[in-house]
This record gives sequence, structure tokens and C-alpha cells, in this order.
Amino acid sequence: MATDGKSNLSFVLNKPLDVCFQDKPVPKINSPHDVLVAVNYTGICGSDVHYWLHGAIGHFVVKDPMVLGHESAGTIVAVGDAVKTLSVGDRVALEPGYPCRRCVHCLSGHYNLCPEMRFAATPPYDGTLTGFWTAPADFCYKLPETVSLQEGALIEPLAVAVHITKQAKIQPGQTVVVMGAGPVGLLCAAVAKAYGASKVVSVDIVPSKLEFAKSFAATHTYLSQRVSPEENARNIIAAADLGEGADAVIDASGAEPSIQAALHVVRQGGHYVQGGMGKDNITFPIMALCIKEVTASGSFRYGSGDYRLAIQLVEQGKVDVKKLVNGVVPFKNAEEAFKKVKEGEVIKILIAGPNEEVEGGLDTTVDEKKLKEAKACGGSGCC
Amino acid sequence: MATDGKSNLSFVLNKPLDVCFQDKPVPKINSPHDVLVAVNYTGICGSDVHYWLHGAIGHFVVKDPMVLGHESAGTIVAVGDAVKTLSVGDRVALEPGYPCRRCVHCLSGHYNLCPEMRFAATPPYDGTLTGFWTAPADFCYKLPETVSLQEGALIEPLAVAVHITKQAKIQPGQTVVVMGAGPVGLLCAAVAKAYGASKVVSVDIVPSKLEFAKSFAATHTYLSQRVSPEENARNIIAAADLGEGADAVIDASGAEPSIQAALHVVRQGGHYVQGGMGKDNITFPIMALCIKEVTASGSFRYGSGDYRLAIQLVEQGKVDVKKLVNGVVPFKNAEEAFKKVKEGEVIKILIAGPNEEVEGGLDTTVDEKKLKEAKACGGSGCC
Amino acid sequence: MATDGKSNLSFVLNKPLDVCFQDKPVPKINSPHDVLVAVNYTGICGSDVHYWLHGAIGHFVVKDPMVLGHESAGTIVAVGDAVKTLSVGDRVALEPGYPCRRCVHCLSGHYNLCPEMRFAATPPYDGTLTGFWTAPADFCYKLPETVSLQEGALIEPLAVAVHITKQAKIQPGQTVVVMGAGPVGLLCAAVAKAYGASKVVSVDIVPSKLEFAKSFAATHTYLSQRVSPEENARNIIAAADLGEGADAVIDASGAEPSIQAALHVVRQGGHYVQGGMGKDNITFPIMALCIKEVTASGSFRYGSGDYRLAIQLVEQGKVDVKKLVNGVVPFKNAEEAFKKVKEGEVIKILIAGPNEEVEGGLDTTVDEKKLKEAKACGGSGCC
Amino acid sequence: MATDGKSNLSFVLNKPLDVCFQDKPVPKINSPHDVLVAVNYTGICGSDVHYWLHGAIGHFVVKDPMVLGHESAGTIVAVGDAVKTLSVGDRVALEPGYPCRRCVHCLSGHYNLCPEMRFAATPPYDGTLTGFWTAPADFCYKLPETVSLQEGALIEPLAVAVHITKQAKIQPGQTVVVMGAGPVGLLCAAVAKAYGASKVVSVDIVPSKLEFAKSFAATHTYLSQRVSPEENARNIIAAADLGEGADAVIDASGAEPSIQAALHVVRQGGHYVQGGMGKDNITFPIMALCIKEVTASGSFRYGSGDYRLAIQLVEQGKVDVKKLVNGVVPFKNAEEAFKKVKEGEVIKILIAGPNEEVEGGLDTTVDEKKLKEAKACGGSGCC
Repeated sequence: MATDGKSNLSFVLNKPLDVCFQDKPVPKINSPHDVLVAVNYTGICGSDVHYWLHGAIGHFVVKDPMVLGHESAGTIVAVGDAVKTLSVGDRVALEPGYPCRRCVHCLSGHYNLCPEMRFAATPPYDGTLTGFWTAPADFCYKLPETVSLQEGALIEPLAVAVHITKQAKIQPGQTVVVMGAGPVGLLCAAVAKAYGASKVVSVDIVPSKLEFAKSFAATHTYLSQRVSPEENARNIIAAADLGEGADAVIDASGAEPSIQAALHVVRQGGHYVQGGMGKDNITFPIMALCIKEVTASGSFRYGSGDYRLAIQLVEQGKVDVKKLVNGVVPFKNAEEAFKKVKEGEVIKILIAGPNEEVEGGLDTTVDEKKLKEAKACGGSGCC
Repeated sequence: MATDGKSNLSFVLNKPLDVCFQDKPVPKINSPHDVLVAVNYTGICGSDVHYWLHGAIGHFVVKDPMVLGHESAGTIVAVGDAVKTLSVGDRVALEPGYPCRRCVHCLSGHYNLCPEMRFAATPPYDGTLTGFWTAPADFCYKLPETVSLQEGALIEPLAVAVHITKQAKIQPGQTVVVMGAGPVGLLCAAVAKAYGASKVVSVDIVPSKLEFAKSFAATHTYLSQRVSPEENARNIIAAADLGEGADAVIDASGAEPSIQAALHVVRQGGHYVQGGMGKDNITFPIMALCIKEVTASGSFRYGSGDYRLAIQLVEQGKVDVKKLVNGVVPFKNAEEAFKKVKEGEVIKILIAGPNEEVEGGLDTTVDEKKLKEAKACGGSGCC
Repeated sequence: MATDGKSNLSFVLNKPLDVCFQDKPVPKINSPHDVLVAVNYTGICGSDVHYWLHGAIGHFVVKDPMVLGHESAGTIVAVGDAVKTLSVGDRVALEPGYPCRRCVHCLSGHYNLCPEMRFAATPPYDGTLTGFWTAPADFCYKLPETVSLQEGALIEPLAVAVHITKQAKIQPGQTVVVMGAGPVGLLCAAVAKAYGASKVVSVDIVPSKLEFAKSFAATHTYLSQRVSPEENARNIIAAADLGEGADAVIDASGAEPSIQAALHVVRQGGHYVQGGMGKDNITFPIMALCIKEVTASGSFRYGSGDYRLAIQLVEQGKVDVKKLVNGVVPFKNAEEAFKKVKEGEVIKILIAGPNEEVEGGLDTTVDEKKLKEAKACGGSGCC
Repeated sequence: MATDGKSNLSFVLNKPLDVCFQDKPVPKINSPHDVLVAVNYTGICGSDVHYWLHGAIGHFVVKDPMVLGHESAGTIVAVGDAVKTLSVGDRVALEPGYPCRRCVHCLSGHYNLCPEMRFAATPPYDGTLTGFWTAPADFCYKLPETVSLQEGALIEPLAVAVHITKQAKIQPGQTVVVMGAGPVGLLCAAVAKAYGASKVVSVDIVPSKLEFAKSFAATHTYLSQRVSPEENARNIIAAADLGEGADAVIDASGAEPSIQAALHVVRQGGHYVQGGMGKDNITFPIMALCIKEVTASGSFRYGSGDYRLAIQLVEQGKVDVKKLVNGVVPFKNAEEAFKKVKEGEVIKILIAGPNEEVEGGLDTTVDEKKLKEAKACGGSGCC
């Protein structure tokens, strides 16, 4: 058996700031449609850090110890009898949320809205910072030969960005403003270009993030000022020559001033997408939405086709996710990695699976220089 | 000439609360595509009252004396050389805003967003409370024989409701909640039924308005309570058995608590439309929009096809606009009519054109009984 | 056990024109998500008759004996452990096709396109002309109290019509032409009205069918002539005063001349839907589609939300399916019922389940008068 | 005056194969919204050649002598009083069809469907193979500095391709098959890539065209065989590894076998667009459309936003239209140029305006080699 002698060590959150490693039994394949995957690499998401720090996000509260992690790639080690699309040895990106397949949302193609969703590292469900993971075969996406397992672990945040950007209904030649230049904002900017956007403006409060955004995907950047949302909006329009405003604005920050500016920077009849998580209630320029006939959409996780497109964008070189990775640490250093993310010292850090050998470890030289200012950000979870 | 000996008396706003009647020269047809219309009836809109009281709406400020009124029906008295679709004697509903036909919004079918729009009774453009009016023939819509000129004056607010309701993407069998039971909210409820809605819930703070809403179009009503938006939302869902929430929610109130409740009452993946005008900025449950993947749309005036559909709905008996009219007053009593609307004593009142004879005048007997409580509303213009 | 002493007699097609009754074992619930249903009534579809006569439809060939029937309503007699939405005794309409839930079509909300669909009475899968039937609970739709089990058996063809009509993107006030006044065409006409169509024109070659269509849902009818498609189209436009053409045209006939006329009767920028089954290849006015920028859609079976809407339309009295039923026969008379359908003597006939008692039997008096000419039709399956 | 001493020589079609040069009076600006443009370069379209050869296309018949040409770029020499967006000296691409701006199609954003369209070189309207041209300013699009006037003359066919490709609703990562590798088919392939298509398969019957397509935009090519449409479809799917079929198929050939194969190569739920002009009626696999729920759209000329996007695609280097030009000839050699196009010896040839100096003239060296086989094509107009 492929799992013999292998560790199923898991990184468990007991309560806020209290984590441990626990050797759990290797999971079994329960359905003929499932596969068993050895986890190779897992990225850390803002939500993981948030659970680690606070033990809860909204009404999702960690009551019992929970394995963290949900941004993973792995290798198939066993397949159920009914699985035809995957074989042992296949390298896959793991979509970490499993819907009921039977409710109106699932049947109408919006499974991300399934009320019975079992999502990794969202209580009470364990996450993927573990040795082995079972999943339905159709939620494991084979990586093309040219896409590495480390890139595979970045497919999850890229799928988030794909889902957000889809809501913006971007047509070739349109102009797009992305509020926030954290991992998701950066990826949204790159996806917007893949949708044919002629201008992509990244907006943030940290100069070094904008510098990186420019090297990554943005055609223009704007450093938010402590002025009114209207004035920031006018400045953005002037900086990127957006005429009467941007065709689409994506908020990947969750920050109140960004959302306010978003509504003022979008043109009449344009699209605004709320992708970033933040405060439940904010002061919002509702009449700007009304009078300009803006279409606003919310975006939650990812759904049908998003993983597939994310992988394609990496395969075709349209989104270079490797650039976001500041380092890879061994499983035993997971807590250290969480601290680095919390401190804002990295964009994205990967934790190797417990059976994976990693030399060296975390290298943040380049990014410490670049991202020193990020600490001042006091960001908000995902971005 | 059909205008010989006829009055072109106009009802002019000089400054807040200062109106007068002025005999203006009968306008000329300036383009071969224009027609000259004798105005028969004009309804009073919340925005007319707002200009009368405050002299401005947002950045639209009445600087020079301006003729009020924009909800009118009339009779063609002359047509330009190029006009083929209308003849002298035709009874028409007047669409009162004339776009440039040349900007990107006009060319892409969204002329209501035209930045050069010349809209009746929006400064600096005169309105339709006058004897004769010129307009492009394609913005005058012939009334079917079975639709009266008084009903024709109601086509404007119905077109507003049609445009709002279109944004809600209502499919047959869906459930709709309409916030606000003023004229526009009532009409939205009726239009929602014409779109096949299986349940239409009217929500307001005035019991008598809800009583009327039930007799007009609503299948259910809910009297808003002084509780949290979440609790009002739960109550609405319970009152109308909406399951996980309404498929679409239309705000026709512009009121902050209504908008907040709207976001909590709409289901995952549902639509919310901001139709009512109110405060520029409000406290808004942005994370409800994000996590439920709500699509929010603004609605501004009306556009392509809206007048045509409004007339059809009246012709087919799907919207009985006559029920909204509490009385018709002679032109000379225009100011009195404005006062009645301001006091909340009527739903809709019509002012006859200066060349029109009206017997009797304002009859508000029924509605004084019904709408006594409306005064407590302190409503916000259109609703 | 609720099935004790009950017959599971099934109506089996051995080969073309060779049927028999066979007592099969009562099926078992295989999944905790399944229910067991006692079949009360089953309608006969054109495809059932086609298999009975020819043993095949396209590449679907009856190789082994197969139970016929797929338009059924029944009563829940047992539920699996995971079923929460249905209880024993509930009366349900049966959706008779079960998709894989795992392919790209299923996950994107188009399960009717699933290549692994197991559809009742489509070889090699048995149909519902049997005593007991198992199905996933989410494909059994509880009937409201006011909807009878006989109406429940009509939900299947109504769902077909709902699915077709949805593709036509009908907006309130639009004009619709439906080619074919068989059961599906009649139901499409009724659904079009529920979508707010202001005019619905039924077109057929049998006068009595048009007479019935007028009494059922059509606002106008047109008897197809043996003239060019262009001339038939001009006649239809004239007969119903459709201006430059119909906003939407639905072909529910599958007949070549109807489809040709459809493309000429639809307006510029209008919608045409192919709902009826017929010859694989026909002579088609492709340049009419091109130059008028017509959007053409195919429609196949039904999908997400269609059954739910079909039931609502019956519940709300918007589609009176009872009018289509010419009679109900006992299970033992199933073959006789097939003959009546083949002869075109009925619109729709129901076969009671083998455990159901039926008095009287087939009453076709009214319709023999009405539909005598139908025999001349030589129709094509579903319509 | 800028036109003093300048020639307004025009290239006039008297009747089939009978052309002449005629010095016409320089046109005047008739509306304050118009501009006067000196024509610099004009490409030859298949429809120009068709009128030259046959004197008619469908019901458009050349009854009086008509100036040919409609693919032009020029330089502003005068502007009307109301023109604010253009100045004398601006280099512009000319959109050559002028709608009424007042019909339901114009007002709803589909001006290309305007029944009163005045389109250059479509009888009875003169074309742009002339010295000076007047047009509404909003139908003249300023060329960016980096886009040459010769590229400007190619914006018209590129706008055709943009309009066609838009109908295909291509999303990033999708697969697209383009039938026909003439100018429009080549441009559709390039536009499809700008929409993010991951695979673009060009299909033609001329090997040299496919060779060029590969160098221009196609990721894969397929040489149509004299086999059944089903077999050609299977071959295309195999050649480009399209799984269950292409997400979108564009016919830019108008050829019956191509259209037939298109319907077999498109996947379930996919899009097929008819862009190429050909026979009015063809044998068409209607059941493939029906059962696979294909959405088919026609495409006619171009509309709102198409020119703007076409110019952007050239400016951003996404479509290298220069590659399509085989040569530029002086105005006096216009008839020779028509002959070259008719012979299939060139992809695209430009005719300089009568006031333009051209050195050298037609260079078809490269393409004679490449396109020798094209003569065998016997193509159909535009493609």
C-alpha cells in the first residue's frame, strides 16, 4: 500500500495561538468516486492565519481541534473503483470544498453556495495540512506536465481570483481597477489581463506592494491617499487616463475606503465586484450605484470551471504564480510560516507535506526588502 | 393652425416655494423629426415637489425660473416633415428626456445614461406643465384606443417601475420583495407580477399604504418594525414563506433601514435593485452582498423599450394605473395639487393642461381615509 | 411494508409492436438519498409510441426488453435514511432522468446534457409504466395540495415546454409564434403567456388543433398553407399584426416547413428555439439567421428548476394541464392507450398504475369530434 | 480651404464589369455633427468584388452608377460646428454605415440592424473610393499615434471579425474553431485569441491559407477533406484534442460543408456563429443543434464598440493587420487591384486615395508563392 510507513502528521489548531502536530490515521476511501492524495505542498491563506489568531471567522467558530490548511497540491496514491479520470501517480491541485450535489444551488451550477458545503479548515471540517487527503475525483484537477506541484498549491488562490474576476464581466479592451495588492488582488490583476483588459490599475496603501504589482501584472498603479473617496477616485482616473471611469472595479481589499473609492471610480453602467472580506457593515455610496446604474456582484470562493481555468492560465504562462512564493518550509516549521504571514513579511509561503523533503527552507531575503512596509498595512485576512 | 387662440400658460418655479403662471410663446418644431403636442394631463412626481420645496436635487440646482412637470400625456397638433409614425390627433404618452444619440451610452442602447440628456424639469430644462410641448417623434408613444389620456400621464412613473423591475431579472415563479409602497413601489409590485412573480411582498412603515398595496398588486405585505434589519428580514421571510430568502428585492424607498433589510432578505445568488432615491451614503451590509453572491443593480429613469412595455401593461389590464389617481385638478390649481402631494394626502394627482376643461376637481375622500397615516411617513421624494 | 401484496406489474416492450405485462420484483432503495414511489399515473409521450412502433430513436436502440413510460406521478412509500425533504405519503411528480452529478455539465448546472444520464424508457433503462419506482429524492417534486396526481403526470411534458420556452428569453410584452399544436406546442404557448407574452400565435396544419389551441392558450392561430416558407411567414405576421416579425419563435413540430417558416417569421435580433424532434438534416434558411442576427437555441429535455416552475404554473392556474387529458385507462389497457395515441385520436391519455383503480376508462367523445382531422397529420413523435 | 486644388476623383461601377473614374464635386458638411475626411487608403472587400462582377448581392441591386469601396481610413479636413471630439488633421478609421438613430434597433443598441441604414457601396449609396467623404463625427474613430493609416483601412474588416467573435461568447481558456481562412476568418482567429481562447483551429480547403493562418493566429489548422461533415468534425476534434468538441465554432466561410461540420464539431451547450455569407438555403444538421443545445447566432456587419475594440487590438499588438496586406496601389490602378482580389492572388490589397502618392505599387511576390492554390478555392465573397 502506497501509504505504508508514511506519516499522516497533521497541523492542528486547538484554540487561538495554540497549535500542535498530531499523527492521525491515514483516511480511507469511502466512496468509489473518491481518491486518496498524498499532500505535497500547502499555501497559507489569510483565513488560516485568522483562525489561528482568533479561532473564528464570523459565525464559523473553532470549537474542537481542527487541522488547518486548504491551498494544496498532491499526488494520487489510490483511486476508488468508479474513478476513470485519474490514476495513481497523477499530480493534482485539490479543490478543498465538497458540496452536497443535491440542493438547488448545486443543481443549478452554483455549488459554492451550497449550504451543506464541507470546506477544508472551515470548522468543523479538518484541513489539508496533513499527510493524506481523500476527495471526490472530480474535485482533484490533474496538473499538466509543465505545471509543478508548488505551482499546483497556488491554484486555490488563483481560482479565488478567477471567480472574482469572472463576476466583473470583463471584455477585451476594457479598463479594470483592482483595489488591494495582496495575493488575491495581484492574481485578480493578472486574470483581468487574461480576460483582455487593456489597462489594469492596482491600488494599495503600501508602495512596495504596488512596485511588485507593476512587475507582476498591473499596467498602472495608484497609492491611496488619506483623502476623500471621491478624490482618490478622481486621482485614479487621472493616473490611468480612464475617461469617465473604469469599466470594472474589483475590491480585493475588504477595506472600507477602498470600497467607497471603487464606487466612485467605476463608470456609468460599469461593474463592481466585492471580492475581499472585511467588516460586515460599512458606509457605502449607495446613490453612486443607483444613479450610475452600476452592477455590483459579490464573489465567494470558486465554482464550476474556476480551477480548470486557473490551471490553464498557469500552463499558458498567463499568470506566473511562482513569483508570489517567497519560500518553502518543511512541515515541522509550519507555525513559523504562519508567523511570517502574520507579520506581512511574505506574499505567499508554502509548507511541504510531512512526507516531503525540503532543503534550505524559507528564503525571504528579496521580499523582506520589498515588503518591509507591508507591516504597516494591518491588512484584513485574505488580502 | 391648431394652436391658434390656445394658451401656452406654464407653471414656473422661480425659487423654493415661489411659483407663478407665465404665458410663454408656443414652441416651434425645430427638426423635421419633431412633433408639437398639446399637453392634456400631467402627474406630479416627488422630484417636482422636491425642486418646489428645496430648489435643488443633488448637484441639479434651479438657478433660473424653470417650468415644472414631466409626467405627461398629450395630443399631437403638428408633425415635422420626416415624421411617419405619428399624425395630428394622435394621443401620446410623452417620454420627457432627450439624449444626444451620439455618445457611447446612446449608441450602446443605454441612452438614460447619456451625459448630455435634456430632461424635462431638471435644471436648466423646462418641464411639461405647459400648454404645448415639442419632442422627437420617437419619444412620443401613441396610446391604444383603450388607454385614456389620464392613464397616459401615468405611463412615466410606470416606465420608471418597468426599468427598475427589469434590473431584477425576475423569472416566472420567483419571489419578489418591494421595499416602499409609494407610487413607484406600488407600480414595481404590479410589474413584478407581470414578470410572473409568484409572490410579491410589499414592505412599508405605513399600514394604510400596505392595505392599498394588497388591493393593488401585492400578494403579501409586511409592516416594518423598529428592529434590526436582520430581524425585519427574518420576519419578511417568515410572513411570506420565502424559504432561504427572496429571489429578488427591489428598494423603491431610498430609506436606509429598508436597504439594509433588503440585503438580508435576498437569497444567496439573488438580485437586489436600488430604485429609490435617498441619502448619498448609508451604512450597508457589504459582507451580505459578498458572501451570498448577490447581484446588485442601480436603476436610473428609463430607457429603450420601457415606455412601450408600460403602455402594453396598461392596455392588457396587467397594471391598473387608474387606481393610483386620487383626483384631477384644473391647471390654475397646480400649486394646491403640489401641496396635497407634499402633505402625503394623495398617491397620485393629475393636473389638467391649461387648455383642458375639468369639472369638479380634486376628490380625495376615499384616500384621506386610507392615507391619513401617510403624513407620518416623512417620505423621501419619489416614494 | 407498504409494498406488501402490491403488484409490480410492468408494461414491457420486447421488440417493435411486441409488448407484454411482466411482474417484476419491487425495487429496493439503494442509496440513503433515494425514495421508493408507488406510481399512480403515467402519460404517454410521442417517444414511447416511437419506441413501440420502431424500436429505436436515432442511435438509441431497444436491444433488450424495456419497460416503457416516463411521464409519471406517484406516492412516496419509503425514504432513505438521508432524505429530509420527503415523507411517506407525499404525492410527487417524478423527474425521470438521473445524471451523474460529477461531469462538467452537471457541475455547471446543465445536467440534462450529462453523457451518463440514465433516462427512463430510453434504452437500456427501464421506464415508469410499473408499480414501484426508486429515484433520488431531489428528482421527486412534492405536489401542492391543490394539484392532483393526474395533473402531476402532466408535469413532465410541461417541464419540457418550460425548458424550451426558457431558451426563447421571452420578456413581458413580446410576441411569440409556436410552430405545432401538439401537446408540447400547446404547453409552450401556455408557458409563453406565463412569461408575459402579449401575443402567442399557434401554427399547425390541423384546424381542430388550432381551435383547441385558441381555447387553451393562443391569442392567435394560423393554419399553415402549402406555400413557400416566406409566404407562410408573411401570412403569420399579417394574421397577428407582428410588425417586422415575432420576438420569439418556438418550433415544437420538428417539421421542415415549420422550421423554415420560423426563420422567416422571427424579427431581426429575435430568438428561435428548436424544441421539436424531427429529421436530422433539413433545408435551412441560414442567411436569414445570419443577416437578421437571430439567436437560435436547441432545447433538450429539462434541467435545473424546470419541474419546480412547471408545478408552480399548474398550482397558480396559469397552465390548465387537465384540459389536455382525454381519458384515463386501467394499467391492463396500456396497449390500447398506445394505439389511441398513435392514431392521433387524443391529445394526452393517462395510464393508471397497476395498483390503481379506475372506473370507466377512456373517454374520447369530445376529442374525437375535435381531433378527427389529426389523423391526417402524420406527426412526428412528441408533437 | 483644405480641399482646394484637390481631386475628388471617384471609382464608379456603372454595371457589372464596367467601371470608370469620375471627378465628383467635393461633398459639403450638411450637419453640425459631421466631418469632412480626405480618404487616404481603402481596402477591397469581397462584397466590392461581388458588386463589380455581378451588380447585385441578394436584393441589393446596383441600378445607378455607384462609387465602390467601404474599408477606408482618412484625415479630417473640416469639422462641423458641434464636433468636439475631432480636429482637422486627425487620422481616422471610417465606419461606413450610418443608421437612423431613431428606430427600436438604434435605440436599443443594435444600430447595425437599422432598416434605414445608409451603408457605403451598398446600393443606392456611394462608397469611399473617392477623394473626400463626409460622415458623422461619432462614426470616425481617431487612430492612435502608433497605428498607421494603412492599418486604419484594415479596421473595417477587423471590426467585422470583432462583431462575429463577440457573438461566440468566448471565455478565457476556451477552444475555438474558425471555418475559413480568408481575411475575415483569419481576423476572427486573431480576435478569438484576444478573447483568451486557449486553442484556435483554422479550417480551410487551401493548404497555403492554413500555413498563413498558423503564422498569423491559429494554434492548430485542419485541411478539410471530401468526407462527411461528421468525419471532418471528428478529425478536427482529434487534430486539436478538443475533447467532446469545441466551445465555440465560427463560420467565416459561408460554405455549406463548413457549416455542416461546424454543427458537429461544437460541443454540447457550445456556441456557433454564422459570420460568412453564402447560399440562402443549405442542408443543415438541425437535430445536432437541438439535442446538443447549441446556441447559434448570426452576425451582420458591426455595431456599438466594435470599431473601438478593433483599433485597440491593433494598438496593443494583439492583431497584426499589416501582415494581411500584400500591396498598395495608386488610385488609378483600382481596377487592376480588383482583378487581383478576384483572382485570389492576394489576401488584402489597399488602394491609395486619389490625392495620395504611392511609390512602387503592388508587391505580391511573397503571396503569389503562398497563395497560388487559392485560385482553386472559388470562394464566396468576404472569405
